[in-house]
Amino acid sequence: MKRSLGPKTLVYPTPVLVVGTYDKAGKPNVMTASWGGICCSQPPCVAVSIRKVTYTYGNIMARKAFTISIPSTDYVKQADYFGLVSGVNTDKFAVTKLTPKKSDVVDAPYVKEFPVVLECRLLHVLELGVHTQFVGEVLDAKVEEAVMGKGASVEIKKLNPLVFVPDALDYYGIGDFIGKVFSVGQGI
Amino acid sequence: MKRSLGPKTLVYPTPVLVVGTYDKAGKPNVMTASWGGICCSQPPCVAVSIRKVTYTYGNIMARKAFTISIPSTDYVKQADYFGLVSGVNTDKFAVTKLTPKKSDVVDAPYVKEFPVVLECRLLHVLELGVHTQFVGEVLDAKVEEAVMGKGASVEIKKLNPLVFVPDALDYYGIGDFIGKVFSVGQGI
Repeated sequence: MKRSLGPKTLVYPTPVLVVGTYDKAGKPNVMTASWGGICCSQPPCVAVSIRKVTYTYGNIMARKAFTISIPSTDYVKQADYFGLVSGVNTDKFAVTKLTPKKSDVVDAPYVKEFPVVLECRLLHVLELGVHTQFVGEVLDAKVEEAVMGKGASVEIKKLNPLVFVPDALDYYGIGDFIGKVFSVGQGI
Repeated sequence: MKRSLGPKTLVYPTPVLVVGTYDKAGKPNVMTASWGGICCSQPPCVAVSIRKVTYTYGNIMARKAFTISIPSTDYVKQADYFGLVSGVNTDKFAVTKLTPKKSDVVDAPYVKEFPVVLECRLLHVLELGVHTQFVGEVLDAKVEEAVMGKGASVEIKKLNPLVFVPDALDYYGIGDFIGKVFSVGQGI
């Protein structure tokens, strides 16, 4: 039996995306967002939704670029902190002792210590309501050698990313292997 | 040390979203998509990206509505199957013996057996390239009583949703509790 919860945004899992930008003085900033994901394969695009009141909003609009750094669970405290305070009057890199690294392809910094990084140029801005959705074309994806599996793919259990749970407001990790995509369904 | 992988869409985790629509004859169809997620808190909106060649694309454009059903890991075979074949010449509900249930708020069906359902009216269509992004306003979220935790939130370990791993093309489950959002970062 299903219970009607009304108009709520319940998607499971959602990611933990750390959005990197420069402000007008060139100070690197990061904020954590979970409303986002992949939105196109070609051109390769990701979407992330940001509220207008954030420092990041103005930075993306001005610089037309952002990065997405994906933290492993080891960095849950830092990733959570990035969502707690504003970059207007805080240097979040200095407080967390993490390292801003300038992207070599877009005008934005990323978190050097985080294992997966997407460097994006702004393609679309979609005003939705409380959130504005930014669609970025991924110009490069950079991945720590330590989280690469056999072949050229990231091994998710080495990456160990955070899962954001909406509504309950919990972070979880990744569990067991369940099956291969485009394969387990062939038995039906 | 980071390795440059070029322009790739690597977001971890991504969800497994089963998109429900009616065709022009009223036949219910479902397809599985992983390029999507929450995109606005108010109005509550979710985004899902679909290729133009799919049956679902035309159905959403015609009916201006869709649902998203989120399968638990128990339904990995059915969810994978929904991404393997086209609804043009297949009744995917009949093949999988799952039940199409007509939404009471939008002109689209959902999968009765799946534990979380979002019923959406089409708000925006964003042409991106290979994929078209559909933004839907969530008019109602329906959740199985069995996956509700204490209070009015879904308990993710009861829901047990699938995690889609891009590039490697694996399904994983949800792992251990890591910490509370807007809380673990306060210790920094």
